[in-house]
Amino acid sequence: MKLSELGEFGLIEAIRAATPKGRGVRLGIGDDAAWVSHPGGSSLITADLLIEGVHFDLRWTSLFDLGYKSLAVNLSDIAAMGGVPAYLILSLGIPARYDSRQIAEFYRGINALARDSGVALIGGDTNLADKLLVSVCVLGHAPYRPIARSGAKIGDDIYVTGELGDSALALSYLKNQKRVKRPELLKHLLERHHRPSPRLAIGARLARDRLATAMIDVSDGLMQDLGHICAASRVGAAVSYDDVPLSSAYRTLMGNAGLSYALTGGEDYELLFCAPARHRKRIEKLSARLNIAITRIGRCVPPNEKIAVFDSKGQRRDVAAAGHDHFKQRKRHGR
Amino acid sequence: MKLSELGEFGLIEAIRAATPKGRGVRLGIGDDAAWVSHPGGSSLITADLLIEGVHFDLRWTSLFDLGYKSLAVNLSDIAAMGGVPAYLILSLGIPARYDSRQIAEFYRGINALARDSGVALIGGDTNLADKLLVSVCVLGHAPYRPIARSGAKIGDDIYVTGELGDSALALSYLKNQKRVKRPELLKHLLERHHRPSPRLAIGARLARDRLATAMIDVSDGLMQDLGHICAASRVGAAVSYDDVPLSSAYRTLMGNAGLSYALTGGEDYELLFCAPARHRKRIEKLSARLNIAITRIGRCVPPNEKIAVFDSKGQRRDVAAAGHDHFKQRKRHGR
Repeated sequence: MKLSELGEFGLIEAIRAATPKGRGVRLGIGDDAAWVSHPGGSSLITADLLIEGVHFDLRWTSLFDLGYKSLAVNLSDIAAMGGVPAYLILSLGIPARYDSRQIAEFYRGINALARDSGVALIGGDTNLADKLLVSVCVLGHAPYRPIARSGAKIGDDIYVTGELGDSALALSYLKNQKRVKRPELLKHLLERHHRPSPRLAIGARLARDRLATAMIDVSDGLMQDLGHICAASRVGAAVSYDDVPLSSAYRTLMGNAGLSYALTGGEDYELLFCAPARHRKRIEKLSARLNIAITRIGRCVPPNEKIAVFDSKGQRRDVAAAGHDHFKQRKRHGR
Repeated sequence: MKLSELGEFGLIEAIRAATPKGRGVRLGIGDDAAWVSHPGGSSLITADLLIEGVHFDLRWTSLFDLGYKSLAVNLSDIAAMGGVPAYLILSLGIPARYDSRQIAEFYRGINALARDSGVALIGGDTNLADKLLVSVCVLGHAPYRPIARSGAKIGDDIYVTGELGDSALALSYLKNQKRVKRPELLKHLLERHHRPSPRLAIGARLARDRLATAMIDVSDGLMQDLGHICAASRVGAAVSYDDVPLSSAYRTLMGNAGLSYALTGGEDYELLFCAPARHRKRIEKLSARLNIAITRIGRCVPPNEKIAVFDSKGQRRDVAAAGHDHFKQRKRHGR
């Protein structure tokens, strides 16, 4: 079977099925980060390979922002486990025409976020390549039991941090070079697209206080990432259309065009998690204390109900639970 | 300055200089692997990014061998610190035309060596790409104090494991499609090129018994990698031309054509280390017990004597201490 038919998630599943679970592996392939033992403790580890023309486009992405975001998406994976990031290993493929000033700009972006998040760059590899390639691996500590995708229970509430859709909407403006009447609104979207904020503090607090039963970060779009939690936890989900959190920039620019970017756009890097109803007060307090929105958007239902989105009248809304699959939907949103 | 002028090692040095040494980093950028602390212990971590057309050529490399070697070169870095590899994170960029049978062959190569070396595949990332990209990160334990490149002292002996030059000589046959009269000799070289043996047992024993003062694996060629030890340790080196260990296949096929592949070829993945003269007996015993050659090839001298190769008559041999630099010498040996 060709990869284009098998799809990215089919491939990951095939690899997982063929991979013996090794000694010391507490949580292997298939979550946001792996959780492994070593003498004296445990670590979280996650990796991403970013390819020019597939994951980023240098026509509208500065090298500073590319560095920043390359680290941010991996920190988001550590956040989605409730971990604390510590070390960064960075391998680059660099076209020969690049000069040291450009490389320095990339590293400034990396270092800006590394400093803010207490992460140390410890090594990697540099190579000549035709296109720019960025391979990031982040090693983190697990001071609390990590939150996997698989613990959600029927009846649990479903929450998401921040606001959804800004990043994908920004990308649609960049790709289509659409004019925008209110540039300050576009600026907000671009900031969210280029410099996502990994929700490390929220993730770690949810793990410390054992509030969440399952967690993932929204990288492939809300519906698809919710699908990963539902599949791993064997539950369905009922999502409230009107409760999906949107920025005022998104609302203003989209008007009545709806939630498509918020539901299936991707690259939000917000946390999506499930928690028992008895924790509602504590989650509200956490949101207030950290000054980041945490919005209840639905609840877990029996698995035969699958994943459905309902409006305020209880009517089911049709949403293609597509999200992003690198193989099946090539350059789906042009990354 | 363009990368092609700065060179790979210039770039690594620039990155190192610009990178603050973070909390918990015992040994950062610039050794075979990084050595980091975490609550309760410490880990070793190393990464490589392998790019089709730069590091490997699928005209003469099977996907099984590519998988095997991608892991082997990283295990060799862990061996060169005296560590014990434990976990593998693998990110791939895969052209859409690949089918699942081909990917399975690659994973069979990975798994064959992973099983033999007690390494568990724990995660990674898969992406669509124009060319095959393999990004490997290996996390290992450090049960003993790791052996850095920087501890060699003037007067120390210099040793290398196994035999040198087979891999680079094999590559020259592959690239030039030279005919060979004795195919069984070529077979030996190809085996060494495609499936290098990371010297994990020797590395770990040298660390456990504190026999070596400095160590590196020979990936860029003996002269260049010896240069890294000398620079980090601030010593020079006198190498005995006649003592450089060669396989009988190498000797037979090269005839009088000399040591160029053995001295500067690269991709040997043998261990090069320094040790005080008082440990000679113990190192001989270690070689006998593990049934792997460990050959004394020279000694450390004052830094002003630089690195020199002498024949049995004490005459200095002219050797370009070139080795492999990904940027300065593009596709130097056609990888």
